[in-house]
Amino acid sequence: MKINGGFDVAGGIENCMWLSSSSTSSALRRQHFLIRTLCASSTPQTSHNQMERVHCASISVPEADAEGVIRKITPVLDRTRHKGQAGRIAVIGGCREYTGAPYFTAISALKIGADLSHVFCTKDAATVIKSYSPELIVHPILEESYSVREDERETVSSYILAEVRKWLERFDCIVVGPGLGRDPFLLNCVSDIMRHARQLSIPIVIDADGLYLVTNNIDLVRGNSLAVLTPNVMEYKRLLEKVLNCDVNNDNQSEQLRLLSQKIGGVTILRKGKEDLISDAKTVTKVSTFGSPRRCGGQGDILSGSVAVFTSWARRYVMSGIPSSETSLNPLILGCVAGSVLLRKAALRAFLSQKRATLTTDIMEFLGQSLEEICPAE
Amino acid sequence: MKINGGFDVAGGIENCMWLSSSSTSSALRRQHFLIRTLCASSTPQTSHNQMERVHCASISVPEADAEGVIRKITPVLDRTRHKGQAGRIAVIGGCREYTGAPYFTAISALKIGADLSHVFCTKDAATVIKSYSPELIVHPILEESYSVREDERETVSSYILAEVRKWLERFDCIVVGPGLGRDPFLLNCVSDIMRHARQLSIPIVIDADGLYLVTNNIDLVRGNSLAVLTPNVMEYKRLLEKVLNCDVNNDNQSEQLRLLSQKIGGVTILRKGKEDLISDAKTVTKVSTFGSPRRCGGQGDILSGSVAVFTSWARRYVMSGIPSSETSLNPLILGCVAGSVLLRKAALRAFLSQKRATLTTDIMEFLGQSLEEICPAE
Repeated sequence: MKINGGFDVAGGIENCMWLSSSSTSSALRRQHFLIRTLCASSTPQTSHNQMERVHCASISVPEADAEGVIRKITPVLDRTRHKGQAGRIAVIGGCREYTGAPYFTAISALKIGADLSHVFCTKDAATVIKSYSPELIVHPILEESYSVREDERETVSSYILAEVRKWLERFDCIVVGPGLGRDPFLLNCVSDIMRHARQLSIPIVIDADGLYLVTNNIDLVRGNSLAVLTPNVMEYKRLLEKVLNCDVNNDNQSEQLRLLSQKIGGVTILRKGKEDLISDAKTVTKVSTFGSPRRCGGQGDILSGSVAVFTSWARRYVMSGIPSSETSLNPLILGCVAGSVLLRKAALRAFLSQKRATLTTDIMEFLGQSLEEICPAE
Repeated sequence: MKINGGFDVAGGIENCMWLSSSSTSSALRRQHFLIRTLCASSTPQTSHNQMERVHCASISVPEADAEGVIRKITPVLDRTRHKGQAGRIAVIGGCREYTGAPYFTAISALKIGADLSHVFCTKDAATVIKSYSPELIVHPILEESYSVREDERETVSSYILAEVRKWLERFDCIVVGPGLGRDPFLLNCVSDIMRHARQLSIPIVIDADGLYLVTNNIDLVRGNSLAVLTPNVMEYKRLLEKVLNCDVNNDNQSEQLRLLSQKIGGVTILRKGKEDLISDAKTVTKVSTFGSPRRCGGQGDILSGSVAVFTSWARRYVMSGIPSSETSLNPLILGCVAGSVLLRKAALRAFLSQKRATLTTDIMEFLGQSLEEICPAE
C-alpha cells in the first residue's frame, strides 16, 4: 500500500512472506500498526487492488512507488533559500588511472539539484577532473603509494585526514568509490575518512572500488544505518561470498539480499541489475522501470551521485517530521528508490535519442528533464 | 525619482529617513539640490507618483531603475572602436583548489561585452583555467606557501608584484577573490597588488576569499571610493562582526548597510540576498528583480565579473560629462545595480530552460541574450 502516494511500504513489509521471525523488531511492529491503520481508511476499490497486490507480492518483491517518493522528498525551490541548502555532496575518488567516474558522480549531483559538489582525489586526477567542468570543486589531496616514501606514510596519512576533516562536516552526503582505484595506501586513508564521516553521522554511499574496500573490511560499514552499498552483479557476488559465504540464490534473491543487509547490521543495499533490489534488512523493494538496454560504463556513477542527493533530501524530509506516519521510513531506502528510477528514466530518454551511440554523458543531460517530468520545479 | 530614466536616486536620498545627520555631507547636499531642481520640472503625474514613492520608501528601500542604468552606461558599438575600448578586466584568483570561480568571473566579463579578460592565478590553476576557454589570457604568476621556500619568500613576492605591475595600469577594473584561496603567502602578495591598484586609481571588485582578506585587514579598502565589496549572507555577517562588532539587524538592514559602508570610508557594498542591497554610505538602493530559485555555486562569480564590466562602463559614462546632472552619480553604484539585474535576468532565463538542472554555465550562456533584451546592440 502507499502512504499518501509515497513509498510503498505495505508490499515491502506486510507481504514479505520471506521475513524471518527474528526481524520483527519494534520498528517493524510500529510499521505493521501504521499500515493496518491506514488500510482501514482505504476505499473499497483500493482494498480490492490491495488484495490483488498481496497475492502477487507473495511471489515477487513489491515495486516501489518511486516517482511518488521523488515528489515527496524533492525540496520546493523558493526565493528564501541560500547556497548550500539544496545539498552539499562530496565524492571521494579519482586517481592516476580513473577520472571519469568521480566526475560523473559529482556532476550528476549538481544536475539533479544539489548546490555544491566536491571531489577529493589524487593530484594527477585533479587537473583532469577540474578541466571537465568549472562547476566542481576539486581537492587534489589523496596520494597513492608510488608518490609517498615508506617513512613518510604516517605523516602524509595524518595530513590527508586533517585536510579532509576541515571539509567533512559541511557535507550532507558523501560518495566513496568512483574511480578510487585499489592502491593500499590510498585505501587506508579512505578508511580513516569513512570512520570519521561515520562519527559525524554523515550518510555515505559506497560504490565501485569503495565496495572492494568494504568487502575486504566489512567492519567499516557494519551497523552503520547511514551507509548505502550499491553493488553491481559482480560486486554483489563478491559481497555475498565474503559475508554469507555463499553464491547468488536466484530463486529467492530478495530474501538473500535482506539477509546480507541484516548480517552487516542493517546497512542499506541497492543491488543493481535488470531490476534494482533495495533492502535495509527490514524491507525489500524494487525498481524495475525500464531504462536503457545500453550498458555503457559510467551509469553506476550517475546512480551513486543521484542516490547521494536524494538521500540527503529524504533525510531532511523525514527529519522535518511532517506526517508522523512517515517518519519511520528509512531515508536511505527512499534515496535509493528515487536515484534508481531517475537514472532509468534518463537512460531511456538518452537511448531513444542516441540509440547505440548512447554514452553516459548523454544520460546525464537527461537527468534534469526526467526529474522535471516527475516533479516540476514550479 | 528617475533622472532621465536613469538611476533612481530620489528614493535613495530624499526618502532615506534612516540617513543620520552626520551623513549630510556636501556631496549629499549637492544631490538634494539637484533632485529638487529636477522635481520642479516634473509633470503633476510624476509628482503624484513621487509622493506615493516617498510614502513607500519611508518603510522600504527604493528599487533602482536597473535596466535604465544598463541602457545609459552600456557603450554604443560602432565601427571606429578598437580592441580594448569596451573594457579590459582582470581577475586575481585561482589556486590549487579553485579554478572554476575565476573562470566564471573572467568569461562573464567577455560575454557581457568586455574586449579582454585576464586571470592572474597560481601555476596549478593556470593550466586548468586555460583549458576551460581559449578566450582568456591566463597568467600563471601567483604562488602558494607550499611552493616557496621560507628564505625565498621576499624575493618571490617582489617578483610577483613586479610582474603584475607590468599589466595593472592597462585594466579598467580588477576583481580580487574568486577562487583565491586562503594561503597566507598568496594573500600577502595580493594585498600588495591591491595597494598598487589603488595608487593607480583602478576600480576593484572584491568577492569570496578577497572578502576574507579584507575582513581581516579593513585598511586595505578603507576610504577607497573605487572599491566594491560583494558579500553574500555569511560574508556580510563576518564583515559586520568585524567592523561594527554586531550581528545582522533584520529590522533595518538598509541603515545597517549604510553605516557599514560609512565606517569603511564610503566603500561601495553590494549585499547579496533575496534582494540585492547596495550602498556607498550616501545612498541605499536595491535590485529585487526575480532571478532563479536555484542556488548553485558560481553565480556570485558571474556577478563579480558583471559588476566589473559595468563599473568600468559607468565610470566612462560619468566621466564623459554628458548631462551635468548625472556626473555626481557614483559609477560603482551604477555598476552594482547593472550587474545585479543582468545576473538575475540571465539566471531566470536559464532556470526556465533547465529547471532544477540549472548550473552556472547555463546562466552564463544567457548573459548576452538578457543584455540584448534590455539594451539592443543595434
